[in-house]
Amino acid sequence: MAPRTAKSIQEFALIRELKKQFGHQTPGVVQGIGDDAAVIEAVAPIWWHLTTDLLAEGIHFDLKSAAPESIGYRAATANLSDLAAMGAAPRYLLISLAIPKQVSQPQVYGLYRGIMKACRIHGVVLIGGDTSASKTGLFLSMTLLGTTAQHRALFRHGAQVGDQIYVSGTLGDSLAGLRLLAPSTSSRSSEEKPSHLSRSHRQFLIRRHLQPTARVTEGQWLNTGRLASAAIDLSDGLSGDLRHICEESEVGAEVEVDHLPLSPACRAYAKTCGVSPVQFAITGGEDYELLFTASPRSCRTLERQARARGYRITRIGTIRSKEFGIQMTAQGRTQPLPPTSYEHFR
Amino acid sequence: MAPRTAKSIQEFALIRELKKQFGHQTPGVVQGIGDDAAVIEAVAPIWWHLTTDLLAEGIHFDLKSAAPESIGYRAATANLSDLAAMGAAPRYLLISLAIPKQVSQPQVYGLYRGIMKACRIHGVVLIGGDTSASKTGLFLSMTLLGTTAQHRALFRHGAQVGDQIYVSGTLGDSLAGLRLLAPSTSSRSSEEKPSHLSRSHRQFLIRRHLQPTARVTEGQWLNTGRLASAAIDLSDGLSGDLRHICEESEVGAEVEVDHLPLSPACRAYAKTCGVSPVQFAITGGEDYELLFTASPRSCRTLERQARARGYRITRIGTIRSKEFGIQMTAQGRTQPLPPTSYEHFR
Repeated sequence: MAPRTAKSIQEFALIRELKKQFGHQTPGVVQGIGDDAAVIEAVAPIWWHLTTDLLAEGIHFDLKSAAPESIGYRAATANLSDLAAMGAAPRYLLISLAIPKQVSQPQVYGLYRGIMKACRIHGVVLIGGDTSASKTGLFLSMTLLGTTAQHRALFRHGAQVGDQIYVSGTLGDSLAGLRLLAPSTSSRSSEEKPSHLSRSHRQFLIRRHLQPTARVTEGQWLNTGRLASAAIDLSDGLSGDLRHICEESEVGAEVEVDHLPLSPACRAYAKTCGVSPVQFAITGGEDYELLFTASPRSCRTLERQARARGYRITRIGTIRSKEFGIQMTAQGRTQPLPPTSYEHFR
Repeated sequence: MAPRTAKSIQEFALIRELKKQFGHQTPGVVQGIGDDAAVIEAVAPIWWHLTTDLLAEGIHFDLKSAAPESIGYRAATANLSDLAAMGAAPRYLLISLAIPKQVSQPQVYGLYRGIMKACRIHGVVLIGGDTSASKTGLFLSMTLLGTTAQHRALFRHGAQVGDQIYVSGTLGDSLAGLRLLAPSTSSRSSEEKPSHLSRSHRQFLIRRHLQPTARVTEGQWLNTGRLASAAIDLSDGLSGDLRHICEESEVGAEVEVDHLPLSPACRAYAKTCGVSPVQFAITGGEDYELLFTASPRSCRTLERQARARGYRITRIGTIRSKEFGIQMTAQGRTQPLPPTSYEHFR
């Protein structure tokens, strides 16, 4: 006669344990895990930024091939990266899990540990969530809250014709790392000889895939310094994400292919595959770098401050009119930027 | 070479459609659906209340037996009810869906329609969410945000010895409705003759199950009027939820069985089952009524205001010391309140 949705004793035990391990009280948190809702306080006028992701077993992760801690870490990074692209400081986290019978308790705790490992360095506090049984796969839902001052955020819609396009870090590493880890799941060409890759390059690319860095500090710097006119994080890949900025800003873009920042490891890996590393840079996702635009008058300050702070940023193109479309230029030749899918690009 | 997590064209179309149908801009929403994060504004000092639920196909709902709109409506009510129990005004909503291939687009829109139907009457605005494919079942995750003034909320931990225990509405109707709808999924006794139930009673109980009401207005009234010392919503059932208040408040409770508010329909249905309707009232979940406590000096004002406003509330017992435990009294006999599970109670 108990309601179908009532929690099991195991679920209550998990919630208690999570509260003990991760749910410490901090200023601003009025009520954390353990009531009908979490309660947080906003004293000064503020903008709240909310991002949420729902990750499905077999779609976003595979418990057979990846460690739970790494799955959690990457899931948290994707959310942190969304807030980084808004220029927000991440603050509070809600985690929900639907757990099938075959998933063990150490696996569940591994997931939480991975999530909190990525979050804790930014001072994010776990304030709530939900747990449920699952008759099928494992599902993970996260909601992350961050803050900025009022009227101070990086949107996708601020890019203007003439603005310069920048990215942080290097591009394509995560995809190369994924292909090294799981060759069967990606469309690898027959010429590929990853055995020719040095151990350090291999390690670098795999780490870039398994432990990506959300550019939280860089995002807040761009935002508070009013240095960027628009921003997005590179989760889908340069081609797809630049398209989002152009759509929301109602502009076009020209990408200078020779400027795309590539790591030596990505170059070396592309060579073993017999393809141009540019393909990885343009279509590879999950790098979690920032893609942003800056007005020409901000560029000098932007680049000077980046150098002073040790942030790697690279100018990769220019915002053009909507009519120009989204093009890439290489060796004087201009052609449409290929869509995200690798198959279309080869 | 596209990242595994990149959204499909169908998903982008769904997001655009949702933005058009439900994502209207309102004051307080700086950025709704369509950027890396949703942005909301808090100008005055405020408390934010956050609640989240993750619902799994086959656990919380069954697409074969329930209409998507009804699944969405009930899911939203559960979240609204959590905020009602905090005394908060619901404001903003994030919805995430993991959608398997076999679920059709009309089913997906039906879910959203049901959710928004329950939310719209409270002025809740859809500000974001996520969509994903699913290799297995349908999963729905919701995060709802509400507000109260600072230092003004109903927690589980405020009950004190001598406080009176109240509930809104009537208890057990939802479970009776569920059993009428899905006899095979509930432990129905062999004596049960639901055919003896009148059509109007049957309809009442089924409606109470499929279209429950979150007591949002009542919760805000209790909160702003400082009328309740502690509150929770009845999602797990009186037995389970009273236990939460007692644990968090470190008290015991005495429930007067003869006072439990029962609808004529629930009484009639219990009779056809050959059991006491009290069983439904104590162990049935998903009524989404409010269970709250009030200090003896508030009771007169509380009851007078409830009458004036047309809210049905019933005094069902008294908060006792922790040592007393959680007991129920019937015809002068006191015994422990049975745990949630029906099986233990029969």
